[in-house]
Amino acid sequence: MMAEWCKPVGRVKGVLLDISGVLYDSGEGGGVPIPGSTEAVKRIKEANLKVRFCTNETQATRETFVAKLQSLGFDIALGEVFAPAPAACQILKERGLRPHLLVHDGLLPEFNQVDQSNPNCVVLGDAAGNFSYKNLNEAFRVLIGLEKPVLLSLGRGRYYKETDGMKLDVGVYMKALEYACDIEAEVVGKPAKRFFLSALSDMDLEPDQVIMIGDDIVNDIGGAQQCGMKAVQVRTGKYRPCDEQHPTVKADGYVHNLAQAVKILLEHLH
Amino acid sequence: MMAEWCKPVGRVKGVLLDISGVLYDSGEGGGVPIPGSTEAVKRIKEANLKVRFCTNETQATRETFVAKLQSLGFDIALGEVFAPAPAACQILKERGLRPHLLVHDGLLPEFNQVDQSNPNCVVLGDAAGNFSYKNLNEAFRVLIGLEKPVLLSLGRGRYYKETDGMKLDVGVYMKALEYACDIEAEVVGKPAKRFFLSALSDMDLEPDQVIMIGDDIVNDIGGAQQCGMKAVQVRTGKYRPCDEQHPTVKADGYVHNLAQAVKILLEHLH
Repeated sequence: MMAEWCKPVGRVKGVLLDISGVLYDSGEGGGVPIPGSTEAVKRIKEANLKVRFCTNETQATRETFVAKLQSLGFDIALGEVFAPAPAACQILKERGLRPHLLVHDGLLPEFNQVDQSNPNCVVLGDAAGNFSYKNLNEAFRVLIGLEKPVLLSLGRGRYYKETDGMKLDVGVYMKALEYACDIEAEVVGKPAKRFFLSALSDMDLEPDQVIMIGDDIVNDIGGAQQCGMKAVQVRTGKYRPCDEQHPTVKADGYVHNLAQAVKILLEHLH
Repeated sequence: MMAEWCKPVGRVKGVLLDISGVLYDSGEGGGVPIPGSTEAVKRIKEANLKVRFCTNETQATRETFVAKLQSLGFDIALGEVFAPAPAACQILKERGLRPHLLVHDGLLPEFNQVDQSNPNCVVLGDAAGNFSYKNLNEAFRVLIGLEKPVLLSLGRGRYYKETDGMKLDVGVYMKALEYACDIEAEVVGKPAKRFFLSALSDMDLEPDQVIMIGDDIVNDIGGAQQCGMKAVQVRTGKYRPCDEQHPTVKADGYVHNLAQAVKILLEHLH
């Protein structure tokens, strides 16, 4: 198998990993690891490659999420995980924004330190059951009442699959509020360039020294490529064969799963 | 005041009236007539002008809606009212479509005669409180399960104002499902050309014989103009001063309210 994506040999110093659909499949009782993934993460670390995890997960705090992954057997630390909510908090702070939150209850503690009085923006996450008619109207009224409405969306995903069926993701509600207010949301998390760059900066590596591995052709692969990284799509998680004929994004490589990606990568390093 | 919109004198044989924001303001207890509107409708009929009412109302059946308007004092008959749900039923019948309905409970009886088994499309109305996370996921699953998803949307409004605040309208949820499924909805009701043309046909008049009077710059004014009618915007209902600088739609005239529109029209006729 050709693996153009991990050449030139020796230049790769780190990997960025998506979590859901790459490390594990979410669902009932917390989810299950994808075969070979716990071992693959271990091998990356043993090879002294730097690793960071880039997720658009917004139904739980990073603490809760990382604890779950550890309980599934993954060697993963809080500081290695980049998620949209902490990135949003950083933006809110920089710009003096006070959010009205429309997010999952499980995410609320991430915003404990943020002034939420007299809101001058809306932060939208995957609120799941909190996406009620009432809550959407409330978020809309905050936006339409602002002279210059600011909507921060924690991701722009369309949908995802859980054990009990397909669920609409945050991007769908982002589009709804965009249309209602005739505005464009600012996306925090993948595929925002700033989000990927913060993970690279934390590794102290350049884009061409890092490989992104993800299951989402637009948000993982397209997003990472726009920052100058090579990006490989796994055929697990939300991967669909039609992704390989995507009209605008072409992955630098395809692998069965994370385990195979890491195997190829390590072969080319040594 | 110049009134180019009702020239050439004598050519105008009929009027199309929007209802909400032109005849009355909706809200608590059914709403209140806009001053002078009941009298204005009476004057139109006394002048032997033909009149039809074009509404995007989808929270109640036409029967219930017309009864409410009659109780508010309007001279209005069921057969004079064009609403999206009956128009949608016609389309469903023509194309052999079996709808999954995401609409207001009050609208359900309009679809009593329609086969809803094994749905092969989704019909979206202003479902208000029925716009729950659960119901949206269900509509989404129907669409994404179809080889060629068909979404009929009863209007494409962004929002409207009720006495207890601003509410998101059907167009917002239409955009949400469009993005989720990467499709374009078919809009039934205003501003769809077919919808206006069916009212004209029922009057047996040509577009240049009919004046549209409405409060919505895009759906009333723009929609009617696209069919070749002149269209006048009232400064009641959802009218906002910035409508007069709309980037793509320019009304043929502006009036304070329906009473003034009818006054000018009748002066030019006689």
